[in-house]
Amino acid sequence: MTAYDDLMEFTRDTQALGQVAGRLGWDQETMMPRGAAPQRAEEMAAMESALHARRIDPKVGDWLSAIDDETLDTVGQANMRHIRRSFERTNKVPAALATKLAKVTSAAQGIWAEARAADDFKAFAPTLAEVIMLKREEGQALAAGGDVYDAMLEDYEPGTTGANLEAMFGSMRPVLSELRAAVREAAPVAPLTGDFDEGAQMKLTRQLAKGFGYDMTRGRVDKAVHPFSSGSGLDVRITTRTNVKDPFNCFYSTIHEVGHATYEQNIHLNHLLTPLGNGVSMGVHESQSRIYENQIGRSRAFTGWLFGQMKDAFGDFGVKDEEAFYATVNRVGDGFIRTEADELQYNLHVLLRFDLERALMAGDLQVSELEGAWNDRFEADFGYAVDKPSNGVLQDVHWSVGLFGYFPTYSLGNVYAGCLNEAMRKAVPDLDANLAKGDTSAATAWLRDNVQTHGGLYEPREVIERAAGVAPSEAPLLAYLKKKFSDIYDL
Amino acid sequence: MTAYDDLMEFTRDTQALGQVAGRLGWDQETMMPRGAAPQRAEEMAAMESALHARRIDPKVGDWLSAIDDETLDTVGQANMRHIRRSFERTNKVPAALATKLAKVTSAAQGIWAEARAADDFKAFAPTLAEVIMLKREEGQALAAGGDVYDAMLEDYEPGTTGANLEAMFGSMRPVLSELRAAVREAAPVAPLTGDFDEGAQMKLTRQLAKGFGYDMTRGRVDKAVHPFSSGSGLDVRITTRTNVKDPFNCFYSTIHEVGHATYEQNIHLNHLLTPLGNGVSMGVHESQSRIYENQIGRSRAFTGWLFGQMKDAFGDFGVKDEEAFYATVNRVGDGFIRTEADELQYNLHVLLRFDLERALMAGDLQVSELEGAWNDRFEADFGYAVDKPSNGVLQDVHWSVGLFGYFPTYSLGNVYAGCLNEAMRKAVPDLDANLAKGDTSAATAWLRDNVQTHGGLYEPREVIERAAGVAPSEAPLLAYLKKKFSDIYDL
Repeated sequence: MTAYDDLMEFTRDTQALGQVAGRLGWDQETMMPRGAAPQRAEEMAAMESALHARRIDPKVGDWLSAIDDETLDTVGQANMRHIRRSFERTNKVPAALATKLAKVTSAAQGIWAEARAADDFKAFAPTLAEVIMLKREEGQALAAGGDVYDAMLEDYEPGTTGANLEAMFGSMRPVLSELRAAVREAAPVAPLTGDFDEGAQMKLTRQLAKGFGYDMTRGRVDKAVHPFSSGSGLDVRITTRTNVKDPFNCFYSTIHEVGHATYEQNIHLNHLLTPLGNGVSMGVHESQSRIYENQIGRSRAFTGWLFGQMKDAFGDFGVKDEEAFYATVNRVGDGFIRTEADELQYNLHVLLRFDLERALMAGDLQVSELEGAWNDRFEADFGYAVDKPSNGVLQDVHWSVGLFGYFPTYSLGNVYAGCLNEAMRKAVPDLDANLAKGDTSAATAWLRDNVQTHGGLYEPREVIERAAGVAPSEAPLLAYLKKKFSDIYDL
Repeated sequence: MTAYDDLMEFTRDTQALGQVAGRLGWDQETMMPRGAAPQRAEEMAAMESALHARRIDPKVGDWLSAIDDETLDTVGQANMRHIRRSFERTNKVPAALATKLAKVTSAAQGIWAEARAADDFKAFAPTLAEVIMLKREEGQALAAGGDVYDAMLEDYEPGTTGANLEAMFGSMRPVLSELRAAVREAAPVAPLTGDFDEGAQMKLTRQLAKGFGYDMTRGRVDKAVHPFSSGSGLDVRITTRTNVKDPFNCFYSTIHEVGHATYEQNIHLNHLLTPLGNGVSMGVHESQSRIYENQIGRSRAFTGWLFGQMKDAFGDFGVKDEEAFYATVNRVGDGFIRTEADELQYNLHVLLRFDLERALMAGDLQVSELEGAWNDRFEADFGYAVDKPSNGVLQDVHWSVGLFGYFPTYSLGNVYAGCLNEAMRKAVPDLDANLAKGDTSAATAWLRDNVQTHGGLYEPREVIERAAGVAPSEAPLLAYLKKKFSDIYDL
């Protein structure tokens, strides 16, 4: 056994324990009896503590010193890149600060939830200020003299900087905001009305999951309050939800989560339970969920097929033809909530959060100014005013739990999806003909072979560049959105 | 923080991780997609390895040396008794032997399953001989000069010896065998016939579970191939099964598992995630499942109520009245399989295994003689011959996975249930009147307050003696069985 073999064996056990912790999280949202919550908190804490002890285990440091990465093959070097990054990251943050942050963010989540329910930002502000202070301290420890926000991004999207994102998002914002304004001037599309049996929704949603390549022998679909995908390798489970008035929420939540889940399922099995056996970054992950959901799932061709499926499942539901159905699926309406936003407005929500959280971290924006800054920016970009904090600055849990640098990965995922869509449509020229028959297999196979199979083998931008054949840029996404919404709204 | 506090904090985390491992086991039998099995094996191994490292952690030895148990209160002393026993037990077995045993028994289970399917004991014999050799080696390490089988019993029923059991089981065997022979001579009871909707079975089984005091806010009922109870404290889940021809299997499996599960649920919450927060022994555990299932659930009074429930759920199913239904529920028929045996014959199955496995461990019986010894003994006790090994010596998984000393706890549980039933009926004189209305609350409350709440606070025999008011003996069980089956079969 070489030091590398020993390290990989140790890492494999750590990955396996990480999967167990993930499965507990799944159980908590789907199966756990509600009275078990206090005990579950202790179980999760014991798992986290065991995982943390492994992450900072001095044995890992010894192995890392003993290994010369240059002597390893490509896979070995990629494994070492992940292991070194994680070990160094964990060891840079003082234990006392990590404990304090865990404690404060745990309490902050409850305080945020109460403040949101009471629509009272002031009740949350002091707690948020404390979280930000601690996160800046953590960021300074991680950055070691470099940019604090860049150090935070490294946790979610290694290789991306605030300056990169600022340039990218800066070109997106005016285009999206103008497009949004033009759509607001156009003739509105009517929303879906009527009731849609929830059992029939679940039946069709499982069919959609399978159709998009989700392997049910290595996964399962359950209902939960929030849709999510959980696990890697041979056990990747998703959740979805139903609402009798809103079948699209069920179907597109499922397709979105199937994008995440098939990414995990399709990573080459050689990488199982190694650092390469997980999706490489939040941005690349989101590119898979978004291209499944939007560029494929909300395309004219695929919605044409889905229209027929919905008529079979629910009878006539008041939409006259495929063209009208396509518009209904892609309807752009006024709304305040990021998670409910359509494809056009979604990125405007994210860009707003990116600018505000970066300013908070730089000390250029104070918590006392945050609500006002949010509301001003929202009205400028969307054309209407926020009515209450729960529809504005208090809507997302992220900041309360210390997630800074996470929001931009949503839009980066959309940008990546735009790049991949352009390349995929060149590589699979008859794609729309297949999608019109409900057959997504050519698209999902292309994504599997060009993106998903690699897992953590390449760096995030490299994954996209290898698949798309060009460096990632926002141009394909913007062109796609302009064309799509100009067609639907006759702009 | 004293050494005791430190030790208890460490132990609490270990208990929490043990609960997590248990939950994985539950998931595996109920929810896990089948393709996840190879990954799950690695996840379980990582959990076991983490738990094992904690069990042999030298820090525990240091704490144990530093603590003077005499300075602690009753609860503290009981905790120390469990922790010392477990630490000493784990450290007595050489690591190489433990690893070898784990490896051999893991393979042996598969070899046993194949041999059983092929009805070929010879195909399993060499493997069983190896398991026995390793288990004897382990037993010698544990016994440190004492009796090997007694050392094995200590794992499942601390404080009980082979000699105790031999005396107890020796008085039971002739009584049970004669009673069995008399019933065989009597007019037979017809078995249940017809089809019973499985959805309606599950509905009634959940009602039964709640009726017997199972707290669904801290548990759940799912279907699985084998019924089991899993978890302690605030999260105790059970499984059951359905068979359209055999609703009793569903109902009495559920009631049995609810006996185990409510024991875990009703342990005083002060003991949560401590060594006292689990059922104290296999025998006491089985006393709870058996008294729920048999002395309460198969009583004349309770079956009278159940008859009405089944008529409501399934309509007329060809049993004419309560009296006939009582006989049907308690029908004694010829059969080879322990797990399918009625209340009368069940202990004969166990007594047979106890004598054989004790002789195997003592070296008084060789594996080559085992099949013959089994068949001879079976015919002597039951009055008919074993037709094939899968109905005889190959029917149980236990020996293949190294469980020696486990079988007798099943009958010890029945003996304890007999003692508890006698005391309970004195303490709750109007019990039958309640059971006839389907109300088990007085019985379950008595068991909760006199047995279950203590968890691991007292030694197993002490728990029973405190509740029953006298030292445990087989006499109440034998008297109960003689009366019951004499009434049903007009002996």
